[in-house]
Amino acid sequence: MTQRFNPRFSATASPPVMEARRWLERTPRTTAHELLNLSQAAPVALPPKPLRQAMSNFAASDMDAHIYGPVLGNPELRQAIADRWSVAYEGAISSNQVAVTSGCNQAFAAAISALAQSGDSVIITAPWYFNHKMWLDMMGIEARLPDNGGSLMPDPDAIARAMVESTRAIVLVSPNNPTGSEYPAALVRQIYDLARDRQVTLVMDETYRDFDSRTGPVHDFFSDPDWPRTFIHLYSFSKAYRLTGHRIGAIVASEALLSEAEKFLDTVTICPNRIGQHAALYGIRNLDDWLADQRAEILNRRRCIETGFAELDEWRLLGCGAYFAYVEHPFTLSSDKLVLKMLAELAVLVLPGTMFAPAGHAGATKQLRIAYANVDRDGIGDLFDRLGSYRP
Amino acid sequence: MTQRFNPRFSATASPPVMEARRWLERTPRTTAHELLNLSQAAPVALPPKPLRQAMSNFAASDMDAHIYGPVLGNPELRQAIADRWSVAYEGAISSNQVAVTSGCNQAFAAAISALAQSGDSVIITAPWYFNHKMWLDMMGIEARLPDNGGSLMPDPDAIARAMVESTRAIVLVSPNNPTGSEYPAALVRQIYDLARDRQVTLVMDETYRDFDSRTGPVHDFFSDPDWPRTFIHLYSFSKAYRLTGHRIGAIVASEALLSEAEKFLDTVTICPNRIGQHAALYGIRNLDDWLADQRAEILNRRRCIETGFAELDEWRLLGCGAYFAYVEHPFTLSSDKLVLKMLAELAVLVLPGTMFAPAGHAGATKQLRIAYANVDRDGIGDLFDRLGSYRP
Repeated sequence: MTQRFNPRFSATASPPVMEARRWLERTPRTTAHELLNLSQAAPVALPPKPLRQAMSNFAASDMDAHIYGPVLGNPELRQAIADRWSVAYEGAISSNQVAVTSGCNQAFAAAISALAQSGDSVIITAPWYFNHKMWLDMMGIEARLPDNGGSLMPDPDAIARAMVESTRAIVLVSPNNPTGSEYPAALVRQIYDLARDRQVTLVMDETYRDFDSRTGPVHDFFSDPDWPRTFIHLYSFSKAYRLTGHRIGAIVASEALLSEAEKFLDTVTICPNRIGQHAALYGIRNLDDWLADQRAEILNRRRCIETGFAELDEWRLLGCGAYFAYVEHPFTLSSDKLVLKMLAELAVLVLPGTMFAPAGHAGATKQLRIAYANVDRDGIGDLFDRLGSYRP
Repeated sequence: MTQRFNPRFSATASPPVMEARRWLERTPRTTAHELLNLSQAAPVALPPKPLRQAMSNFAASDMDAHIYGPVLGNPELRQAIADRWSVAYEGAISSNQVAVTSGCNQAFAAAISALAQSGDSVIITAPWYFNHKMWLDMMGIEARLPDNGGSLMPDPDAIARAMVESTRAIVLVSPNNPTGSEYPAALVRQIYDLARDRQVTLVMDETYRDFDSRTGPVHDFFSDPDWPRTFIHLYSFSKAYRLTGHRIGAIVASEALLSEAEKFLDTVTICPNRIGQHAALYGIRNLDDWLADQRAEILNRRRCIETGFAELDEWRLLGCGAYFAYVEHPFTLSSDKLVLKMLAELAVLVLPGTMFAPAGHAGATKQLRIAYANVDRDGIGDLFDRLGSYRP
């Protein structure tokens, strides 16, 4: 007899990032090149020194660093997020419309679970962010995929056609993971209006917002006084202040939604860890200039990627922005096989399009996600040197 | 139009600990007594200084403090848990049978979700640990309650009778929250055998293990070479090393179970925060003597509670151990009303039995949970001074 598991879990894909870690361990490399790991969207440098010092001081002596805090996060941090977001989006957000979470994945899981149960459905677009798809699969919530005709932009008409009686939410990610695409404000407004008219909730994951190339509000939802009825915003502190190891994210939503999400968050983590919350608050209060420099650097890397692919025969850059390039490779090999050969022969690790799309998706076997923000401009130059002459 | 939420969430109780925080804010006190907050099981003193210093140093300069780690936890910590637990339980546990989680609540949510889906059922005993009940309710998993005839000990026959075709797991908590009861090894072995014979999984939450009054293994499951097929152990580092604000727990289970749980943990938090993991490892390696002193102190407090209730007319101590006393009060007032009066008139905050039992449960209105480990022996003396002459 073997142990019997939840069949929904058995049918859910394994975590792609852990899968990529296993490839790294198990794939012998036939090249002397140093590894270019472009698989995970994660800053690989330390947070700025004053931020580390603030965390270090807090851990050494402050009682608040070590004891349980409120489920929905420290009041000061909730207030700081409300204030900052109200300015950034030219809208009205109060602190009781903000919850702090243990990362943005948890923000998504809590928000979706408060909206939809098994048997319900949620609209996501393909290519999808894999952890969103995994959560829906584990929870028995149907992921409905609008037919975009291959575009990387969401199509309001296709979304409207994909919606059914059981649909509880539309999920967007902008700037997008995996494609890097920045969704135009007018386009997402159409989807917001659709959600409002159909009385479903629009959930937008804005994890990469700080690296959006646009200035000013990237959408105008928060300027609608009725936004809490229709909209849920998700955010991550991981990228802005290099806090991936500290697991701090946020939900901005109606008080009513947060009081349902509080049940989930309490039962799943009790509270976000206190040192991470301290770090996020320090960042909001002190690191604006530092963040502006980071953004400029990431946008520089983006230009290097755009230039590099423009000069690279046969490859096509489909989407680019924030941390990601989403590209079409010129080979007959399927992307899930190609990434293993690229790791062995080029020492370049990227993720295959097949991780972001349903089985049998035509485009996915031709596509790769390159998390370029992890390497500096020299590293990006190096990437193109390796890809230029490559024939798997 | 109002927003539509998951009806399973709407039907789930709000977090009792947050409810108690609201009572604190909103209840005017008519006494000059200082507050005795005996509502949450949480150390209220700082972790020992060398541990704080270790966290502080780690945060100041170590890259590993700040970047994503593996979903199932740092390999060194998993190994340290496996080694330590193998000794403590006189059994065989390998590091790939250990996962680190963001607290023990998350360990429960991940383990149960990997075993059971909506429509399935799980056995829990009443009085229950409220976050267990909340998770089952939110997930649409039926909580089946064996009829113990009012005993605080689980009854193997009653559990067997409560099991049905849809039952996927039996959940026990020992030392118990809320009752403090330490379940005898022979008794839990009967339930282990029942689970094995019926091919369901026994999940035991041993959060308070370090404060068990017994020496030697508290159960013999890990000495069965087949334990991974039947048993899941859950643990928390919050109490042992005063790390409640850092959110670190553990699951010990079969590799197959952990590979399903990994999908949940990745999607819900990506990884446990790194500073908390560093602290847990430091504790295992360096704080044995310190922990032994803590345990002795908590056991002293337990004796004060036992003595105090023996001398207190009309009150009955139903269960006592680890952090909790579970008591029967002598008043006609229902426990959920009594706790508010006790807060106002005595400045004593405890939780009512109604938070740990289904609506209409006869005993619950007479019962209170007192988390006595939060106060020293003077504070316990003070508690009995206040209760002695009390008539609400």
